[in-house]
Amino acid sequence: MVVNGKSYRTVWMEGSSVLMIEQNLLPFRFSVFEAKDYRQTCLVIKTMITRGAGAIGAAAGFAMAQAFLEAGRHAKPEEFVLNAKTEIEATRPTARNLFYAVERVYAAGKESAAKAVEEAQALADKDAADSQAIGEFGNELIASGCRIQTHCNAGWLAFVDYGTALSPVYKAHESGKGIFVYVDETRPRSQGARLTAWELNNAGVPHVIVPDTAGAWLMSQGKTDMMIVGADRIAANGDTANKIGTFEKAIVAKTFGIPFYVAAPTSTFDPACKTGADIVIEERSDEEVLYQTGPDEYGNLVRVRVASPGSHALNPAFDVTPADYITGIITEKGIIRPEKNEITKLIAR
Amino acid sequence: MVVNGKSYRTVWMEGSSVLMIEQNLLPFRFSVFEAKDYRQTCLVIKTMITRGAGAIGAAAGFAMAQAFLEAGRHAKPEEFVLNAKTEIEATRPTARNLFYAVERVYAAGKESAAKAVEEAQALADKDAADSQAIGEFGNELIASGCRIQTHCNAGWLAFVDYGTALSPVYKAHESGKGIFVYVDETRPRSQGARLTAWELNNAGVPHVIVPDTAGAWLMSQGKTDMMIVGADRIAANGDTANKIGTFEKAIVAKTFGIPFYVAAPTSTFDPACKTGADIVIEERSDEEVLYQTGPDEYGNLVRVRVASPGSHALNPAFDVTPADYITGIITEKGIIRPEKNEITKLIAR
Repeated sequence: MVVNGKSYRTVWMEGSSVLMIEQNLLPFRFSVFEAKDYRQTCLVIKTMITRGAGAIGAAAGFAMAQAFLEAGRHAKPEEFVLNAKTEIEATRPTARNLFYAVERVYAAGKESAAKAVEEAQALADKDAADSQAIGEFGNELIASGCRIQTHCNAGWLAFVDYGTALSPVYKAHESGKGIFVYVDETRPRSQGARLTAWELNNAGVPHVIVPDTAGAWLMSQGKTDMMIVGADRIAANGDTANKIGTFEKAIVAKTFGIPFYVAAPTSTFDPACKTGADIVIEERSDEEVLYQTGPDEYGNLVRVRVASPGSHALNPAFDVTPADYITGIITEKGIIRPEKNEITKLIAR
Repeated sequence: MVVNGKSYRTVWMEGSSVLMIEQNLLPFRFSVFEAKDYRQTCLVIKTMITRGAGAIGAAAGFAMAQAFLEAGRHAKPEEFVLNAKTEIEATRPTARNLFYAVERVYAAGKESAAKAVEEAQALADKDAADSQAIGEFGNELIASGCRIQTHCNAGWLAFVDYGTALSPVYKAHESGKGIFVYVDETRPRSQGARLTAWELNNAGVPHVIVPDTAGAWLMSQGKTDMMIVGADRIAANGDTANKIGTFEKAIVAKTFGIPFYVAAPTSTFDPACKTGADIVIEERSDEEVLYQTGPDEYGNLVRVRVASPGSHALNPAFDVTPADYITGIITEKGIIRPEKNEITKLIAR
């Protein structure tokens, strides 16, 4: 994606460093963060300097490759690599892509560290190519003048490039369909208001931010034609874990008969999870709900408390939308219904 | 309600001044604001220094009384009062209590300014008494150990005292039922996280703040036993206007079979509105979505931007929940089903 006239991926590797766009500072600062070893990359994932299903996967793959590069300097390289693998996997428990990438790079690294780097790079390239294919399939669903609602950020910032939920949006916009996007704010981390709005602004796509409370109002007024969201993990039966609030929007969309699509590469499918009940939901610190950071009138980033002092908050990071609330899943291999047989066939393709 | 050892109402009149708790500064500062004439009181309502269905109604009644007190100093007192009435009614279009109070005080003021003040005072007293009665009826619905979810703030800060949705909560807490409250954050103005959490903290009621995105997660996990919300206007058929996000929670509650109650005095019913389609929904400035104010680490109140620069937002202040999503309406005269016949009978009582 082009920012300030220069082409960027969300996360990439140079030598033994992993570089990524600093997403905690967006939309107020655009800068690149360098993680010099696998531990720094783990911290990057944990603190959400990089976030989003595909970007986490790519960063985790690169981290695993970094561990192989570092292993030679340690007395017990195999033990070092295995410990690193455990550490990387512990950073974010819900994202399927993370575990997928770590396994692939770990297997390749048994041959050589160079092979690990190569595999991590190939996975990042595949993520970008898959996102592009998702955009093409998804674009076929979008009519001229379509008003699309999305939740959280499943744009290029959440993947290596293009994104999943936003990839069809970009394709539709580029093909001159005159689309409009309703961007859910997506509390508590406001990835919609901060990242999706920033992406759409950067790409010139007409949009407006919608408070999470206004979903039923919006849909009941007939303003939303379709909803597209991303996914962090999809169970064998189609139940889908995604950013907290996705399930609520799916319920409301179903109430008003609005098509509700999930966009995700097949690496997001987890055949080992039979249903959504098997998906581990990450709970994060309640400070994400109680505080917000943004620029004051002088442009200084300030963290302010936005809730009553002395009160605590719940902060589940994801929820699981049951398959029967999902109209279809847009993948790099085509669009399928969220059913066990279709998913099994898709993965086997 | 007792704060820092002293008993307060939310809004009251002393001489020709209207005094109220400064709600824009809560929960970070507790202070009293004095509005010396009806125009200042209008500004107070418009800028939400005082807010909430009942408190708006009482403040508007007091403002109308102020206008009668001021009218004697003007060449055309009748014209002055009529203009004031129009100005007061224009402050917040959705709140039924506002129009109800203004009409009542306007009628009384035709006799004398003293009668106008008396009527405004009587309306405020009635608001407090009604809230207390709502608490007693509502408490009958609450089982021991009940986990109650609420949206926005319909506590004593939204009325003259006690509140509506929170009045049963206080009664149940005082009667030792060991209840727990899930407080919806309620973006964009976060009246849940700011005001309801502050009230519950002040009264020692166990609670936790829940992001608006986490409603379906919470209810699907069986954590919520019942939901109680307030109302700004109830149509003749039971359709209910309340804070944006109420309709969405009602849809989710219905999906999971969770009882959904509205608590409101009969002054909230508007027989002139046949259905929710006749209710005017106020749209507010998008700055309420794009910025948040709170104390920084030094305790200074700072306004920060929380959304991507260059993007705009929608900000409907209310939505309408259709009657068939509402289990019952808790009023000062008893609990009714949200049906035309029951509502007509209730108002006639």
